[in-house]
Amino acid sequence: MKFMRVGDVGTEEAVVELDGRTWAVGSEVDGAFLAGGGIEATRTAAARGALDEVDIAGRRIGAPLARPGKIVCIGLNYRDHADETGAQYPAEPVLFMKDPSTVVGPFDDVLIPRRSVKTDWEVELGVVIGTTARYLASPEDAMAHVAGYVICHDVSEREFQLERSGQWDKGKSCETFNPMGPWFVPASEVADPGDLGLRLWVNGTLMQNGSTRNLIFDIPFLIHYLSQFMVLRPGDVINTGTPAGVALGQPDPKPYLRAGDVVELEIDGLGRARQRMEQA
Amino acid sequence: MKFMRVGDVGTEEAVVELDGRTWAVGSEVDGAFLAGGGIEATRTAAARGALDEVDIAGRRIGAPLARPGKIVCIGLNYRDHADETGAQYPAEPVLFMKDPSTVVGPFDDVLIPRRSVKTDWEVELGVVIGTTARYLASPEDAMAHVAGYVICHDVSEREFQLERSGQWDKGKSCETFNPMGPWFVPASEVADPGDLGLRLWVNGTLMQNGSTRNLIFDIPFLIHYLSQFMVLRPGDVINTGTPAGVALGQPDPKPYLRAGDVVELEIDGLGRARQRMEQA
Repeated sequence: MKFMRVGDVGTEEAVVELDGRTWAVGSEVDGAFLAGGGIEATRTAAARGALDEVDIAGRRIGAPLARPGKIVCIGLNYRDHADETGAQYPAEPVLFMKDPSTVVGPFDDVLIPRRSVKTDWEVELGVVIGTTARYLASPEDAMAHVAGYVICHDVSEREFQLERSGQWDKGKSCETFNPMGPWFVPASEVADPGDLGLRLWVNGTLMQNGSTRNLIFDIPFLIHYLSQFMVLRPGDVINTGTPAGVALGQPDPKPYLRAGDVVELEIDGLGRARQRMEQA
Repeated sequence: MKFMRVGDVGTEEAVVELDGRTWAVGSEVDGAFLAGGGIEATRTAAARGALDEVDIAGRRIGAPLARPGKIVCIGLNYRDHADETGAQYPAEPVLFMKDPSTVVGPFDDVLIPRRSVKTDWEVELGVVIGTTARYLASPEDAMAHVAGYVICHDVSEREFQLERSGQWDKGKSCETFNPMGPWFVPASEVADPGDLGLRLWVNGTLMQNGSTRNLIFDIPFLIHYLSQFMVLRPGDVINTGTPAGVALGQPDPKPYLRAGDVVELEIDGLGRARQRMEQA
């Protein structure tokens, strides 16, 4: 069972894929849908034949989640990435935020910002929150708050992020900098989010090939930890960090992205995305 | 002309104050309202007597703007604050982000986070965006994108922000950490946003007494600058920084906020707010 949103920008229609066929969900897939039991209601409606089949061939695929409330990102969270750069593992999670209006579809163009010379890629497992989490008592309480998972491309401008006078957010919120999808996969369909392969190619060359087994802070810990500092609400997204292999970690001259480059991303069970870089 | 939202949390009704009387706006005051010419439409409707008068006496006052898309904050942006702490003026604006779900009403309680020992106050001028701003050519183009102004209380937890392994956002997004209002005042009603007094009291003692004349980066510059790094959209808010006088800048033992403390805030022409601290 996978959710998608298809159609032109701003007028996407939510659909659900079940047993190889595609059905209209009949409502938006957003925080209210997740909080209101929309996933189970869709499953029930499909089982009793109450959904209309839709043909999505040739239609644009949008981000699978509408109107995320916030996007919280975790930095330096893969052992292989920390090892490769010689960085110490952080004592506790590094977090920053991304403008939620950066979300675009999984096959939409990504815009290289004007005056950017260091636009970089990051494949990440995105965790979508389904119910409000506030001061959780322990990591054991965390997974009940997860609605499901998406691929997020946490596009990053390294000069803006690291060399422009403070706080990473400056290089994380450029227009189109969070392609998401293609699928939103409910948590019940993912056997072990702590054992998913993540891969990213640039112009056909495999650059990132990691596994969530290498997370320094795993998903239950992250949700528990974040809930001590902020309220996680239905429709919020956590970008859980990126494995080794970004441009920043390569020898000079680092192969930052340019207009015309094509990035492909894949996470086990969550589909495959592809974005072409264009100049803003 | 001032907009307010009155009523219980989540069911606020937008009203407009004109000539000492209060009228129902008849729609929500949010990004879509601002982008769609809602301010001028309300003025016109009031002038031809098409609005219903409402009595707001005794009703809760909520945040004057519904559903801000993002809150972008500027750090270290007042000369008196930088001088007092001995910090150099930043070479370019420091920016970070705040979870937009932290917005609460101007008289609502503020929650001291659990395990917090360094909750601090910051009175700030909030700039509300009215039309999309993207790669503005110069600061001269900026002010046409401003819908109006609000008081924001950028409540901050200094240990979370500065001592907990990276990025200020960690101490800026705790629940209730952005009281806003009481009023949203349209830009046309503010003669010079670069010459507004800001004041903040804790338990009746004046702690901050600044002026936007002391901004290191003024409002047109900030909007122009931010538009190079992100798209500013209708309903987004920029918290423009805080003047001298926060607890962090005081001699030890620093007078951080505790449950029971009362903070009052005021900006010339934007009203006065008052929040009581409670333990989360």
